[in-house]
Amino acid sequence: MSDTATVFDKILDGELPCHRVYEDEHVLAFLDISPLAPGHTLVIPKQRKAFLHELDDEYAAAIGRALPRIARAVMAASGVDQYNVLQNNGRGAHQAVFHVHFHVIPKIEHRGLGISWRPGGLEAADAKALLATMHASLAADPGSK
Amino acid sequence: MSDTATVFDKILDGELPCHRVYEDEHVLAFLDISPLAPGHTLVIPKQRKAFLHELDDEYAAAIGRALPRIARAVMAASGVDQYNVLQNNGRGAHQAVFHVHFHVIPKIEHRGLGISWRPGGLEAADAKALLATMHASLAADPGSK
Repeated sequence: MSDTATVFDKILDGELPCHRVYEDEHVLAFLDISPLAPGHTLVIPKQRKAFLHELDDEYAAAIGRALPRIARAVMAASGVDQYNVLQNNGRGAHQAVFHVHFHVIPKIEHRGLGISWRPGGLEAADAKALLATMHASLAADPGSK
Repeated sequence: MSDTATVFDKILDGELPCHRVYEDEHVLAFLDISPLAPGHTLVIPKQRKAFLHELDDEYAAAIGRALPRIARAVMAASGVDQYNVLQNNGRGAHQAVFHVHFHVIPKIEHRGLGISWRPGGLEAADAKALLATMHASLAADPGSK
């Protein structure tokens, strides 16, 4: 899936236009053309990867670094200081374009991201089992380039 | 609000325990004790800031860099490869703890993040006005430390 050119690749390649908000060596940000609220911005890596877990550290760090200043620009444009940052991985998790993208979505009264939250609990034995797997994963994970 | 110690500051200070997943110089990740699905993890900066737009570049980049490997650990623990990354700013945008935190939430059948999405359109004139403000914001924004 990562090898298929998406609409975002076409934007990166200059084949499609975008409303460019921000750009640096690793990152491009542009207005979402189907915004949840005015100022809704997409932030993408210039690396062609479908999912966050595939992204090289260098690109992931560059996106992280850019997010606060893009958030400040979204705040300036939207006139609000409340917003959500959302990044989806997989069709079942609402991903529609298979190139990594972070949404920065202002919350303007009733416009913005709708969230439903149904938390459960965490038993000590379950936490222990989860952590054993996670620590093994992280210990074996050198990160990427 | 940034100067008030939250439950996450108490975790950072060692006053409260956590189920620690990952830690580096700038970042701590631990299991959410009210998970939306097993493996739901919180990733926080060691800088005490309530909102993403207040975070220094160094800490924001460190979180970005850590996210892919934490996502891989969440995938290992949850056994699924679909997940959402969510970061909320402001009470109206569902923020409950006023220390920056990124949720990494596995999507396991019906468990995980519920999203509702009501997109609008983007007129060229509106895009132009938004971009004028955003470019001015970014041009005047040196980033932070």
